[in-house]
Amino acid sequence: MSANERAPGWNPPIRILMGPGPSDIHPRVLAALARPTVGHLDPFYLQLMDDLQQKLRQIFRTENRMTFAVSGTGSAGMEAAVVNLIEPADRMVVCVKGVFGQRMADVARRAGADLLCVERPWGSVFQPEDLLPALERHRPKVVGIVMAETSTGASQPLVEIAKLVHDHQALLLVDAVTSLGGMPVEVDRWGLDVVYSGSQKCLGCPPGLAPITFGPAAMELIQRRKSPVASWYLDVRLLSSYWGSERAYHHTAPINMTYALHEALALILEEGLDARFARHLRHHRALKAGLAALGIDYAVEPSYQLPMLNAVRVPAGVDEGAVRRALLERFGIEIGGGLGEFRGKVWRIGVMGYSAREANVLGLLAALEQLLPEFGYSKFDKGASIAAANQVYVEALK
Amino acid sequence: MSANERAPGWNPPIRILMGPGPSDIHPRVLAALARPTVGHLDPFYLQLMDDLQQKLRQIFRTENRMTFAVSGTGSAGMEAAVVNLIEPADRMVVCVKGVFGQRMADVARRAGADLLCVERPWGSVFQPEDLLPALERHRPKVVGIVMAETSTGASQPLVEIAKLVHDHQALLLVDAVTSLGGMPVEVDRWGLDVVYSGSQKCLGCPPGLAPITFGPAAMELIQRRKSPVASWYLDVRLLSSYWGSERAYHHTAPINMTYALHEALALILEEGLDARFARHLRHHRALKAGLAALGIDYAVEPSYQLPMLNAVRVPAGVDEGAVRRALLERFGIEIGGGLGEFRGKVWRIGVMGYSAREANVLGLLAALEQLLPEFGYSKFDKGASIAAANQVYVEALK
Repeated sequence: MSANERAPGWNPPIRILMGPGPSDIHPRVLAALARPTVGHLDPFYLQLMDDLQQKLRQIFRTENRMTFAVSGTGSAGMEAAVVNLIEPADRMVVCVKGVFGQRMADVARRAGADLLCVERPWGSVFQPEDLLPALERHRPKVVGIVMAETSTGASQPLVEIAKLVHDHQALLLVDAVTSLGGMPVEVDRWGLDVVYSGSQKCLGCPPGLAPITFGPAAMELIQRRKSPVASWYLDVRLLSSYWGSERAYHHTAPINMTYALHEALALILEEGLDARFARHLRHHRALKAGLAALGIDYAVEPSYQLPMLNAVRVPAGVDEGAVRRALLERFGIEIGGGLGEFRGKVWRIGVMGYSAREANVLGLLAALEQLLPEFGYSKFDKGASIAAANQVYVEALK
Repeated sequence: MSANERAPGWNPPIRILMGPGPSDIHPRVLAALARPTVGHLDPFYLQLMDDLQQKLRQIFRTENRMTFAVSGTGSAGMEAAVVNLIEPADRMVVCVKGVFGQRMADVARRAGADLLCVERPWGSVFQPEDLLPALERHRPKVVGIVMAETSTGASQPLVEIAKLVHDHQALLLVDAVTSLGGMPVEVDRWGLDVVYSGSQKCLGCPPGLAPITFGPAAMELIQRRKSPVASWYLDVRLLSSYWGSERAYHHTAPINMTYALHEALALILEEGLDARFARHLRHHRALKAGLAALGIDYAVEPSYQLPMLNAVRVPAGVDEGAVRRALLERFGIEIGGGLGEFRGKVWRIGVMGYSAREANVLGLLAALEQLLPEFGYSKFDKGASIAAANQVYVEALK
């Protein structure tokens, strides 16, 4: 192979990642990724695993012993949560209001669940009363719900739903892929039984790992299983021997990705959870003020808008894909298009982790001010979006 | 969190990885890992995926379109191979002669296979006649076999077995985790239907990805499935939309790990497959000559010894764990202990990928010469192992 063949594109373009994830990676995390590889049973690595688990517990706000990182992406975390809890013919309710609820239902169906899907329109969230009939009728062992639906930008409140689910003797399984590290996820206080996330959103690590936590009721249910977990790779009983005190070999852990996640979690704890959540909220407000000045609306009503994932309606007549391509090619800024029902109708703008910075938010607004008129939309005052966003930032400094 | 809390162990020790994997990582691969993250649908990344697939095809020696990297470790590759081919009650034969054959049987059982295990003693390999009765009696749809059994160091010949399996209208599923990139794996020429590997052995990339290839007969069988694949995450029909021309979003790919694997594969192709295989063989021979001079025997008979994974018998009376700890602590050299039946009885010494270098082999032999007498074993002439290994190297230069 000639040097020539290798050359094309081998240096990645520098992007500003403001889509639905991955988000920008802090230089300290990239540096951690490139540290020398050690063996997966090396005393250093075992200590790093302990420390990683301890950090994950702080971020999940839990004492759960079985808190670790699945060796796969967020979707592997979803699968690990479902296949460990569900045995064939077990009754499960999945709340569907976007792509990731649909995906959870698909995973549950493959696990053999006796599944009841409760649906709400895309962009909305579930109130306890929406779930009650399903709980009474189906009497599920497990209820699955997505906290931050990445396809719609809707933020699902969990406290009352967790209470209702437990009142019906079921366990609550929560997708926190997009929320963890960007807004409060109170595993113990809210009573969430199994919660999984992904490394590449508000945690600020490249994609490839799925933090997960199993509470005592979930572990008890898993210990009582009559059939083996369909997945050897994701079997928590086997994994607990490696992530537990025995450190028995299961599979070869993704060493360097673990370095990166460890560093990303260290950054989170250095910043402090509250400060980090406030930062995500501040940039969300600035972005929202700027978008409002551009006349761009959210796909979700204000009280349920996620801070880190802003799903907004594409102005009528604008070719949404062309705008995204121009953002990427001329400004190096990535934002996301719509998925499923929202395809072609919304943009998904992430302010997640290290991406949640003034320069990114202001830069995106400025780029949109420049681009949108080219694509036939100019119903806004020039400079107004920057002024509106800056006002939010200046007020936050007071 | 104070800087103090972060400090302990946060700089990994520099190891020389001569265990069963991970192997040493070339600086170019570590540098690739730390390149800036882009989105998983970025045009740059999609092109990188194409190029990665093309490189994998060259290394697997196949034209198979469905050649890609599973977003998980080698064990996820094993699971992907099995769960896509096997539907509940499908007949499967698994050849067991070590830990990884046992693991494949476990995975197959969980997938609901009507399973027949054919066993051979640890350290041996299968001859076609060992399989014939099982093929005739069980009439399997799929036969699974491990090419390079990492737990025993035995090298399983595949050509005649592939022919026999096909003569019985079955597909051959091959574990090439330890062999790919270190010895010939001729997917098309030998007629292997599904082959998976792991990034962290002879491919020389950190752990976390599992290259895999599905041949036409396997894809046809998958297309004809009546039941969905139990794993959403590993479903090849879904994955083929992302790794195929549609590039439909499935899960968020492990971007930076893909950079690293791409660079590792580029290094392999620059070296050339034949040169690389010869290099592995040369270091195996040198190591073997040195170990012979130390009076240390292999656990496998000479004709079936793997070049990259040398399973050798611990001399009687020596505390094998204490020697490994001393190697790690005093020399920074990692070698592996035994698994399963071989626990406490063998050392597993890897000369894989970038670890397969003169300095490593000679350094390990020298360290053993220094250490073994401390642990009660001194039945060798001082310096003899180095002389024997060097002789192999000098002859290879001629």
